[in-house]
Amino acid sequence: MKSLTEHLWFNTKNRIEFINMTDKVEYIVKKSDVKEGLVLVNAMHITSSVYINDAESGLINDFQKWLKELVPMGEDYQHNFTGEDNAYAHLMRTVMGREVVVAISNGKLDFGPWEQIYYGEFDGKRKKRVMVKVIGE
Amino acid sequence: MKSLTEHLWFNTKNRIEFINMTDKVEYIVKKSDVKEGLVLVNAMHITSSVYINDAESGLINDFQKWLKELVPMGEDYQHNFTGEDNAYAHLMRTVMGREVVVAISNGKLDFGPWEQIYYGEFDGKRKKRVMVKVIGE
Amino acid sequence: MKSLTEHLWFNTKNRIEFINMTDKVEYIVKKSDVKEGLVLVNAMHITSSVYINDAESGLINDFQKWLKELVPMGEDYQHNFTGEDNAYAHLMRTVMGREVVVAISNGKLDFGPWEQIYYGEFDGKRKKRVMVKVIGE
Repeated sequence: MKSLTEHLWFNTKNRIEFINMTDKVEYIVKKSDVKEGLVLVNAMHITSSVYINDAESGLINDFQKWLKELVPMGEDYQHNFTGEDNAYAHLMRTVMGREVVVAISNGKLDFGPWEQIYYGEFDGKRKKRVMVKVIGE
Repeated sequence: MKSLTEHLWFNTKNRIEFINMTDKVEYIVKKSDVKEGLVLVNAMHITSSVYINDAESGLINDFQKWLKELVPMGEDYQHNFTGEDNAYAHLMRTVMGREVVVAISNGKLDFGPWEQIYYGEFDGKRKKRVMVKVIGE
Repeated sequence: MKSLTEHLWFNTKNRIEFINMTDKVEYIVKKSDVKEGLVLVNAMHITSSVYINDAESGLINDFQKWLKELVPMGEDYQHNFTGEDNAYAHLMRTVMGREVVVAISNGKLDFGPWEQIYYGEFDGKRKKRVMVKVIGE
């Protein structure tokens, strides 16, 4: 069994921002030389997400508007009594998910026609990390 | 390490429809001859889901009613300005999830008493695909 | 390839209760002697969750309050016509997730600074099980 572990770093300009990282994950899969296996891609911070959906800017706006309806940003969250102001970000990341597991077949991400891997930041403007771990043969 | 990759195709009669696919995944696990490992089951389309829950028709109706409350179908989504009418389906699939990873022990899906693997379609009436990837020994 | 399968049992005092199980998963990873691989941690019941987030009691209260807004507990769910009273618990578990997949590097859970693995119970006061499955080398 082969394995490869790499990290991707993000430092977004906006507090909430989604970034397509498909190319970076594909590069790591190629570097691993794994032909058949799985790749785990997960946020290492608990106020950000990794998810798979469309690379379409209108839909990204729709996601962010909808998340602000599901998770009000101004409420009196108990978590914020600790001095934090990002309780909403923990909840939004839960809706969008921590991780994806993607099949590797013939040395490539085995994707449907529109699948793209996104980093979802909910409390940005600072350096945060994503893990990419490949296992297989 | 052994691996096996297969696809399941769905073409639902209704735009929103949930289908139990546990038997089909079990068949692929058996065919793989993997005794100890993992199986990844994921939607290859970004308007459908794979999730694990109960094979109970009342609960399936509850899920669909609840999703329509969380994700209004008639709103002015920006994604729909592109000519699409399925923005809601991208959001519903996010709530229900893209994928499941299931343990294989002794050559079988290692499940609790009520766990069943479902395909969740949110923009159906057309052919769509699910990936099943088994890895292990 | 090595593998190890273990189960954790929970019997919560409250119907809805979240429990930090990071130490127990770490112990199983160590016991497996896997240095590079993945660990799958999943609820085996369809009214409970496994998720990764903060070990902060205020945030745990925020999660539970928010879930009760997203998923009303008193509604006339069709599932409850079967004699059950836990339809809400199936829906809450869907928001929080069934499973996590975590990287193992150098024989340890490969985590960011605040990541903790939680059991999320939504219909407790009875014995329920979580699976921990390690694969790797």
